[in-house]
Amino acid sequence: MGNPQTIWYNKEKNLVETINQRYLPFQKLIVEIQTLDETRFAITDMIVRGAPLIGVTAAYGMYLAALNFSGTDFIAEMQRAADWLKSSRPTAVNLAFAVDEALGVVSDQKTVSENIQSLFVHAETLKQCEIAFSKNIGLHGLELIKSISKKKNGEPVQILTHCNAGRLACVELGTATAPIYLAHEAEIPVHVWVDETRPRNQGARLTAWELGEAGIPHTIIPDNAGGHLMQHQMVDLVIVGSDRTTLSGDVANKIGTYLKALAAADNGVPFYAALPSTTIDWNMNDGIAEIPIEQRDGREVSMMEGMLNNEVHEFRIIPEKSPVANYGFDVTPARLVTGLITERGVCKATKEGILSLFPEKKLTQ
Amino acid sequence: MGNPQTIWYNKEKNLVETINQRYLPFQKLIVEIQTLDETRFAITDMIVRGAPLIGVTAAYGMYLAALNFSGTDFIAEMQRAADWLKSSRPTAVNLAFAVDEALGVVSDQKTVSENIQSLFVHAETLKQCEIAFSKNIGLHGLELIKSISKKKNGEPVQILTHCNAGRLACVELGTATAPIYLAHEAEIPVHVWVDETRPRNQGARLTAWELGEAGIPHTIIPDNAGGHLMQHQMVDLVIVGSDRTTLSGDVANKIGTYLKALAAADNGVPFYAALPSTTIDWNMNDGIAEIPIEQRDGREVSMMEGMLNNEVHEFRIIPEKSPVANYGFDVTPARLVTGLITERGVCKATKEGILSLFPEKKLTQ
Repeated sequence: MGNPQTIWYNKEKNLVETINQRYLPFQKLIVEIQTLDETRFAITDMIVRGAPLIGVTAAYGMYLAALNFSGTDFIAEMQRAADWLKSSRPTAVNLAFAVDEALGVVSDQKTVSENIQSLFVHAETLKQCEIAFSKNIGLHGLELIKSISKKKNGEPVQILTHCNAGRLACVELGTATAPIYLAHEAEIPVHVWVDETRPRNQGARLTAWELGEAGIPHTIIPDNAGGHLMQHQMVDLVIVGSDRTTLSGDVANKIGTYLKALAAADNGVPFYAALPSTTIDWNMNDGIAEIPIEQRDGREVSMMEGMLNNEVHEFRIIPEKSPVANYGFDVTPARLVTGLITERGVCKATKEGILSLFPEKKLTQ
Repeated sequence: MGNPQTIWYNKEKNLVETINQRYLPFQKLIVEIQTLDETRFAITDMIVRGAPLIGVTAAYGMYLAALNFSGTDFIAEMQRAADWLKSSRPTAVNLAFAVDEALGVVSDQKTVSENIQSLFVHAETLKQCEIAFSKNIGLHGLELIKSISKKKNGEPVQILTHCNAGRLACVELGTATAPIYLAHEAEIPVHVWVDETRPRNQGARLTAWELGEAGIPHTIIPDNAGGHLMQHQMVDLVIVGSDRTTLSGDVANKIGTYLKALAAADNGVPFYAALPSTTIDWNMNDGIAEIPIEQRDGREVSMMEGMLNNEVHEFRIIPEKSPVANYGFDVTPARLVTGLITERGVCKATKEGILSLFPEKKLTQ
């Protein structure tokens, strides 16, 4: 597996390295990121994706912008870099959070070189935080899996997940997958239903690849199948990630998540979102009305990548003249969310629930 | 467009011809069916698909079996042919219905040649019935679209459909699409959100192709998108087809239909299933418990067909070692169905509603 992390700073080359997620599972390529523009491209082109990893990448991007600074007004340049990064993807709040925090460590009281150092420390710290968050999310979610496992007489706990909220979306372990990895380590039998996750197939391509590498039993299913499985008691638990969760508990996540939450509610299956607090938007209360939903290139719907004769190709899969629409995310209203698994514990998807774990945020409300 | 029908008997060649739906929208090929085995292969391989068209094809298959009869016990041979055809696909009830009806016209009081003629008449009659059913479904559904259109001030009525319940699933017009075709003819503005319909992509490949040929405005969306669209008032009406509907109003249809019904109910969007009475299973009352759900080859999930350099290829889209599951259908419980659009009118998805349109069936209850 090489480096178990998804992003790291290569000190010898003085650049950031990350896995190019565009080519998984067909090829595992490492990509080098040396500049602000390369950082932004990595985010928009989904070379890196997943809210926590986008945040960490953006933090490194701010450092790289500083490192390459050659103008006269460092602070203004950093502000421009921040705006440029923040405009890359609108839905994940981690991006804005990481960039604003990076701006916060920049000061005109420091030398450029001191600022560069501060930005590097910020990026590395955010990365370590996300690792710790994933670990703690895993430990709290593990308790949920354990309690279901007790009722299953040794049969595997059946967990459905949508998109990739795995280690590839984070730095290590993941969010939604963290409890699964820890359950597997603890020898609790689990089986994961992996939603394909059209149109980018992050489930079929990334989550399945991750789970396969870790030796965790899983089955890829079309996004259409989850409701049927739940109707037939074939799912014990749904765990998804989140790109932004409002203080009121509304969960923005990959398009299609809402449909699974509806099916879970209709069949009495617990539905959890696993997320670090860096994903919570403390200023929002109505996810459906307020969270901006990214519309992406229609080619993601009309074309698909696949393997033919050991080479990756892009194929057209729809009639030549048919228009397409490509909404990246949807919002699952809090009423359909059984609970949020955060680094500080599991809480209800309500303002009261969230603030009970993060009381320090009450001050800003 | 050539022959506007999807299946026809070629008298000169003395064989059945149909569109090979495996290659649409990339290539429009006509396939010849001359034997019982070719009929069954056309059904299992989804060269033809869609409950009404499967029924008509099977009726022709019984005729072809008779035509090729060369043994000694004609009646026993027809029974074997019927069983062989009925085992091809389990979910659509039209198949069993058409085959049993064909058996019903066979008699040991007739000569083989008379039986052959009866089976031919049966197939042609069923075909004409399905054409008439589609037309009437269209007229009844048109009223629903008209009434929505009145409230839209000239804006298009936004209709979401899943899979292909179009003319390709039938003989002409379709079931779910019949009201749409008639609305378009009547110059009522409509726009169709076409669910891609993984894993076989009947929406993106067949419905989009059909609507494109007919010049009807439409947009292909991933199956994951419908909930988001409904949350944002971008869908006025959902119309789907059905492969089997119980007397109690439970609707078996392409996998994923249930998820759209949940989203429609959650957002107050009317959800209709359009179906000829040949799709109603008069002996079933609990769709989820009783309707057999076909599990199909996993290659439909792991591989995908697409165009590369003007040629159709099949390429792998998941990690090599990941297992897949492929359930063909799900059941939408009657409580989520606003109504059924049948050839005799629109009714509630209840036993009372259905029997009010088909009172002659009360005798058999």
